[in-house]
Amino acid sequence: MRGRSSRRRKPPGASPGVPVLTGEAMPSRRHAIRYTATSIEESDPRDARECLALIAPGSVTWLDVQGLADLEQLRLLGEGLKLHPLALEDVVSLNQRPKADDYDSHLFVIARMPEAGDAISTDQTSLFVGPGYLLTFQERYGDCLDPVRERLRKGKGLMRRAGSDYLAYAILDAIIDGFFPILEAFGERLEDLESEVVERPTRSSLESIHRAKRDLLTLRRAIFPLRDAVNSLMRCESELVTDQTRTYLRDCYDHCVQILDMVETYRELAAGLMDIYISSLSQKLNEVMKVLTIIATIFIPLTFVAGVYGMNFDFMPELHWRLGYPLIMALMALLALAMIWYFVRRGWVGPEELPAGRLFGRRRK
Amino acid sequence: MRGRSSRRRKPPGASPGVPVLTGEAMPSRRHAIRYTATSIEESDPRDARECLALIAPGSVTWLDVQGLADLEQLRLLGEGLKLHPLALEDVVSLNQRPKADDYDSHLFVIARMPEAGDAISTDQTSLFVGPGYLLTFQERYGDCLDPVRERLRKGKGLMRRAGSDYLAYAILDAIIDGFFPILEAFGERLEDLESEVVERPTRSSLESIHRAKRDLLTLRRAIFPLRDAVNSLMRCESELVTDQTRTYLRDCYDHCVQILDMVETYRELAAGLMDIYISSLSQKLNEVMKVLTIIATIFIPLTFVAGVYGMNFDFMPELHWRLGYPLIMALMALLALAMIWYFVRRGWVGPEELPAGRLFGRRRK
Amino acid sequence: MRGRSSRRRKPPGASPGVPVLTGEAMPSRRHAIRYTATSIEESDPRDARECLALIAPGSVTWLDVQGLADLEQLRLLGEGLKLHPLALEDVVSLNQRPKADDYDSHLFVIARMPEAGDAISTDQTSLFVGPGYLLTFQERYGDCLDPVRERLRKGKGLMRRAGSDYLAYAILDAIIDGFFPILEAFGERLEDLESEVVERPTRSSLESIHRAKRDLLTLRRAIFPLRDAVNSLMRCESELVTDQTRTYLRDCYDHCVQILDMVETYRELAAGLMDIYISSLSQKLNEVMKVLTIIATIFIPLTFVAGVYGMNFDFMPELHWRLGYPLIMALMALLALAMIWYFVRRGWVGPEELPAGRLFGRRRK
Amino acid sequence: MRGRSSRRRKPPGASPGVPVLTGEAMPSRRHAIRYTATSIEESDPRDARECLALIAPGSVTWLDVQGLADLEQLRLLGEGLKLHPLALEDVVSLNQRPKADDYDSHLFVIARMPEAGDAISTDQTSLFVGPGYLLTFQERYGDCLDPVRERLRKGKGLMRRAGSDYLAYAILDAIIDGFFPILEAFGERLEDLESEVVERPTRSSLESIHRAKRDLLTLRRAIFPLRDAVNSLMRCESELVTDQTRTYLRDCYDHCVQILDMVETYRELAAGLMDIYISSLSQKLNEVMKVLTIIATIFIPLTFVAGVYGMNFDFMPELHWRLGYPLIMALMALLALAMIWYFVRRGWVGPEELPAGRLFGRRRK
Amino acid sequence: MRGRSSRRRKPPGASPGVPVLTGEAMPSRRHAIRYTATSIEESDPRDARECLALIAPGSVTWLDVQGLADLEQLRLLGEGLKLHPLALEDVVSLNQRPKADDYDSHLFVIARMPEAGDAISTDQTSLFVGPGYLLTFQERYGDCLDPVRERLRKGKGLMRRAGSDYLAYAILDAIIDGFFPILEAFGERLEDLESEVVERPTRSSLESIHRAKRDLLTLRRAIFPLRDAVNSLMRCESELVTDQTRTYLRDCYDHCVQILDMVETYRELAAGLMDIYISSLSQKLNEVMKVLTIIATIFIPLTFVAGVYGMNFDFMPELHWRLGYPLIMALMALLALAMIWYFVRRGWVGPEELPAGRLFGRRRK
Repeated sequence: MRGRSSRRRKPPGASPGVPVLTGEAMPSRRHAIRYTATSIEESDPRDARECLALIAPGSVTWLDVQGLADLEQLRLLGEGLKLHPLALEDVVSLNQRPKADDYDSHLFVIARMPEAGDAISTDQTSLFVGPGYLLTFQERYGDCLDPVRERLRKGKGLMRRAGSDYLAYAILDAIIDGFFPILEAFGERLEDLESEVVERPTRSSLESIHRAKRDLLTLRRAIFPLRDAVNSLMRCESELVTDQTRTYLRDCYDHCVQILDMVETYRELAAGLMDIYISSLSQKLNEVMKVLTIIATIFIPLTFVAGVYGMNFDFMPELHWRLGYPLIMALMALLALAMIWYFVRRGWVGPEELPAGRLFGRRRK
Repeated sequence: MRGRSSRRRKPPGASPGVPVLTGEAMPSRRHAIRYTATSIEESDPRDARECLALIAPGSVTWLDVQGLADLEQLRLLGEGLKLHPLALEDVVSLNQRPKADDYDSHLFVIARMPEAGDAISTDQTSLFVGPGYLLTFQERYGDCLDPVRERLRKGKGLMRRAGSDYLAYAILDAIIDGFFPILEAFGERLEDLESEVVERPTRSSLESIHRAKRDLLTLRRAIFPLRDAVNSLMRCESELVTDQTRTYLRDCYDHCVQILDMVETYRELAAGLMDIYISSLSQKLNEVMKVLTIIATIFIPLTFVAGVYGMNFDFMPELHWRLGYPLIMALMALLALAMIWYFVRRGWVGPEELPAGRLFGRRRK
Repeated sequence: MRGRSSRRRKPPGASPGVPVLTGEAMPSRRHAIRYTATSIEESDPRDARECLALIAPGSVTWLDVQGLADLEQLRLLGEGLKLHPLALEDVVSLNQRPKADDYDSHLFVIARMPEAGDAISTDQTSLFVGPGYLLTFQERYGDCLDPVRERLRKGKGLMRRAGSDYLAYAILDAIIDGFFPILEAFGERLEDLESEVVERPTRSSLESIHRAKRDLLTLRRAIFPLRDAVNSLMRCESELVTDQTRTYLRDCYDHCVQILDMVETYRELAAGLMDIYISSLSQKLNEVMKVLTIIATIFIPLTFVAGVYGMNFDFMPELHWRLGYPLIMALMALLALAMIWYFVRRGWVGPEELPAGRLFGRRRK
Repeated sequence: MRGRSSRRRKPPGASPGVPVLTGEAMPSRRHAIRYTATSIEESDPRDARECLALIAPGSVTWLDVQGLADLEQLRLLGEGLKLHPLALEDVVSLNQRPKADDYDSHLFVIARMPEAGDAISTDQTSLFVGPGYLLTFQERYGDCLDPVRERLRKGKGLMRRAGSDYLAYAILDAIIDGFFPILEAFGERLEDLESEVVERPTRSSLESIHRAKRDLLTLRRAIFPLRDAVNSLMRCESELVTDQTRTYLRDCYDHCVQILDMVETYRELAAGLMDIYISSLSQKLNEVMKVLTIIATIFIPLTFVAGVYGMNFDFMPELHWRLGYPLIMALMALLALAMIWYFVRRGWVGPEELPAGRLFGRRRK
Repeated sequence: MRGRSSRRRKPPGASPGVPVLTGEAMPSRRHAIRYTATSIEESDPRDARECLALIAPGSVTWLDVQGLADLEQLRLLGEGLKLHPLALEDVVSLNQRPKADDYDSHLFVIARMPEAGDAISTDQTSLFVGPGYLLTFQERYGDCLDPVRERLRKGKGLMRRAGSDYLAYAILDAIIDGFFPILEAFGERLEDLESEVVERPTRSSLESIHRAKRDLLTLRRAIFPLRDAVNSLMRCESELVTDQTRTYLRDCYDHCVQILDMVETYRELAAGLMDIYISSLSQKLNEVMKVLTIIATIFIPLTFVAGVYGMNFDFMPELHWRLGYPLIMALMALLALAMIWYFVRRGWVGPEELPAGRLFGRRRK
């Protein structure tokens, strides 16, 4: 949440279509891969001019920019490729929702790459898909796209033969598949949390449940609109997307639905954990109160009896009986036994409720 | 849930359409049934080649593969029948959502077969429906399809006369009908749980409610998308599905809706049980506190009075009265009676609240 | 709920379209009414052959079968009228959701007749609407259709002049109208429950709320799909439904919507009752705890003071003062008054919280 | 709610299209306004014949009937104007949902007029819009339509120049606008309730919240279907509604949406109040328990110490010390101070929790 | 909420299309900006006549009216530009929902400008978009449109070259972007609230959560219909909106969706805070009760023992033993230790629950 508040956003009412960088961004690093079905070459262009020179008919150029500090080069690149200014603005305006826009001459897609950590966060990734080129812009260094690069280098499968749309698909697929290990780790975290809440709920369980819910919100905010974006890509009328790629995008779409499904299931389980936590607190209170009540109920009347015979009246015949003391002690024992019998009958004391039972219960699982 | 975490899934960014087996799978067993309206023969082909040899125009071949370890034969089978690589990948990628995809030359359906046990789980079942053949892939050995095989062998009804689409329907129908006995057992389990929660809620009731909710989530995740899959099969434009089969699929669809309906009803009942459980805890706390309060409220003032006459002041005239002791005892009795009268008037002590009442209440049902 | 578990259902994987009776059913009773605009005759056909003989062009025959034990006659009837086997199967497969299917030569409608009792239940009623005939199948003897029969006999209104579709409408209308008195009784039950929960919530209130919720689920499961069934009848393309009947079905549809509306309102009220019940428990606990706290807080310090002067030290000067005892008693009285003043100031003791206040509160309504 | 149970409804299975009056209704009063762009005349026709005589081409006649006891005249009126029997039946069947039906020769609209009171209730108002006439039927005497009548008499604006559809719009608009003052009063009531619940929640707050929720349900049941009715009027194909009126109906529709919006907002606020109420109870319990715990924790150990030195053992050396008594008193004071220090450190005693703090808190707002 | 109740609204049943001012409004201030691609001039017209004189073909005139008291001039302006009377009525009828209506000759848009303060509120802003003119009406002085005016004056970008529709877009964009800083401040407020609720929940936390929820309702009521309004503008068939502007409106729409997304996320977090608050109360109660129970359970039995030996029976042999006193003291110490051991074993006393642990916990973050 702390991250949300350091949002970089241009001031309200500013000119649209003009990229504005209001927070601190990482310096831009550029990496280009240019390939045909038979060849592949990689380079690290220094500026927009070098980047543009790489794009040529007959080959596909993937230009990957990591770090968004270099607005000027972004502007030049946008001009060179006639990218829509609103799309360029979105590239540097972080915390965008995933979406897919069709600007006729190019497609613009925003996705969010999940990143595990203390809390789950997502990094914005923008894709421009044009004829013969694919531009990707990433908020931070390091990504989950190395397997895609490796497949390009190896040249197996469709990767090198298909166009920039298939490459865009491959990247989206890698991003979407990146959600699965995070969700699986999350599933295990939820299981541990469940054991904890059922067996020994503590104050920190509450925070853990809340954090889990917040992470699920982050995931849902990343994947829910991405599903729609993939769907609109799949159904868009642009000629940039081939029928073959559309079939693969359908697979992508299925994965999004599956992730959403898991997120929703986890949300329900997390909500259930909160219920269990709250009722565990009640349960614990009940146990505490039972102990207090049993002790107090047994000893308060006994103390009263002892108090009576501690009174200093001159004329209290029982005090002078020989058997007064043992008799009164026996009476007290009887009283105590009656109370205990009553508690057993009410089920307050018994297998389930005895401390030993509790301890056994803990070891059961 | 434990099962969810042992999910076998290929690494993010891997090539699409290449089946990858990342967990331990059962070795594949193959069983083939080839039939026409008048003849039927069964065999256990050893590899993909033998399987492919069985498929011939004029007959329908049902090839059932249980256990998914043999990826190579799967690949060969896929090549021989021109199955789409993405579909093949889905076959071995477990934990898929049910779905129905139309790949022109064949239909691909995923369903999940429910399995009762300590917790309800579902096994993935994939179906390829092509002209003259039906391929089924199952995660584990043993299934609920024996009645379908029996009907094929007996050759009654439409089974042998209709094509592979009708066989696919019969299998889906058997899978969907398999949910009913599980739901019925679930209904009884919920009834027992309800009696328990209303009559003597314990800590384990809470776990049972949570487990029930989780099972319902598992069931809903299996049946909800299956309903959509059956619907899209019913409405798909493929020539592989005849009008006759579509009518039968409508029946299947109705069953899915009915199951969903029951699942939703059970979900509401389970949510209600949680409410009852929580309020039962409050109720029990109230009872405990009432006992404590009644005992404490009666005896604490009495103990004080006894304490007063236990003081050692030299000049306490009452102590020397002849009737001091009986008088003070009478005063105490009066005080206690006043308290009891007050509790009766407040309704804390009475038919409803007395332990006997509780016990009667328990036996009532 | 107990009823749900005795569901009669054929085993999974059994042949579709073959009626199977797995539970105990009542023996079938048949009653036929054959009428034209000018004539009406009633009979009790003994078997399917006699039934089929009654159906003739130019007249409408309503055959009502109560009790579903006679599967053979059902099969013969189905063959004679060319009823779809899947529909016949649904007739005897109880616990179906209401629905309307168009089988070209006939329409098939399932509705559920509500029945008040210890818990609200619904009986399955199936209708086959064909040219010149209407078949109704009921799970049990006795129904709410006598007014419809009476109207047929009297021959007033459209009843005798219109076709079998209008008769089907009249029956559906009678079934749907049968929900109103049940809902009205339910409304009163909810009002009583509300008074009870607000004024003197007991353990049985909780069960009553839960039962009310379950009854509402039963009603909703019967009426929600019935609304859709009526709607699809109203919009179906079959020539069996005349435009006139469609107008009347719209009225039916409005009634369904109105019933659903009431059910949803009651559901919200029932959910509100649960909230009130739970907060009433807290309220009662608060009251109990206040009494305990007031008594304990007043007397525990006093008892301590008394205890101090009950100590047996040799040198305790106060004990030998002439006014020691009255002084210490006055001190105690002062302490008690200070406590009481504190409680009044905190609002723990006062008009609202005094038992008299509570009793007045109860009588207020 | 009491009102709901006195629902007048004809018995299930009765003939459709025959108005049946089952409860006690007010005797009918009729008032007619007949106007053209230039003239206006008012009268109180005694029966249906006189009413029908007023309707003539070239003028618009608004016949308003208040009280629904006179079924015979209603029937005659219906016959004279060829009103659909199902619509006539709905007029006297109270508790209908708002709706708009198009019967070709006339439109039939049901709306519900809100009425503030102990609880918010709504009166059924039916409108028949035909060529040259508008019939309104109201459940009770007195309505919110006087401003409409006044505008007719003054003849300003479109009122007198437009047809019966515009008059129907004007009436619907008046009914819908009648919701606003009620909602505004409701808003203030909710604010007061909020102050009460936050500052001094009592048992009656709970009832107030529940009543508020019920009133919101009543309002929503009246306005939600009315929105749909206005929408279907706006989009209906009938020639009875001119394009001009459709524009005005869009305004009406916007008002319905706005009212629904407010109702939903209030519902959320009311739900929030329930949460606050419940947590206020917990808060109060916490305060009560803290007082008890502080007092008990301080004095119980002290009382024990006093008890020890009240024991009558022959050999208790401390009892004979000169400084025994002051020493033990000092020890007790120390013990008490340690306890208090512990409570302050835990934050149980301090600015927030002190009674003075509470009282300041109350005065803060 | 107090603001809601001072709603200015005309009485129900009043004439539609006649602006009525029922509350106190600010006197109107007018400011006009008339520009072409090359020129710009600003003025403060005194009345409607002067305003109308400024509108001329070939230029765009933006007339901004702040304060709505001057109804007569509004009426004149409406007549001069042929604005629809219903739209004019909406301008002065405050608390309208955002919407966009197409009146052929002009478009009418209502938006709500958010304003931070003690509670978040929104001011109504109405826009009339016609050929060559844009009228804006604002409820109060001061707005967030100065950056738009500045961009007009500087003449950069599309601002001066595009028509009144682009200007309307620019204004809507500024209004929508104005939600972001408010939401960001809200996010921080929610974070602080979260720390507070988790670490030291007080009574005022509850009020803060409730206020936060109310603010979110206000925001949602402003932005949810605005999204629909922008969407309908984007898709409207009017020629007043150019294709270029539609592309920019899509960007606006995306921002609305993003804001809604944040509002929904915050709503979920706020709901979670309420859960945490309630369970924190239970947690605190548990801690209080544990302290009470530990103290009472240890000392009540000890006090009883002391009471026994404070009894004044003549024959109590133990009293005369030499070691009676030390023995009994040792017995008491043993009893106390047994109790403490029991509590440690139950986990009531230990690292987590010790006050020190709590204090460390507080400092942890």
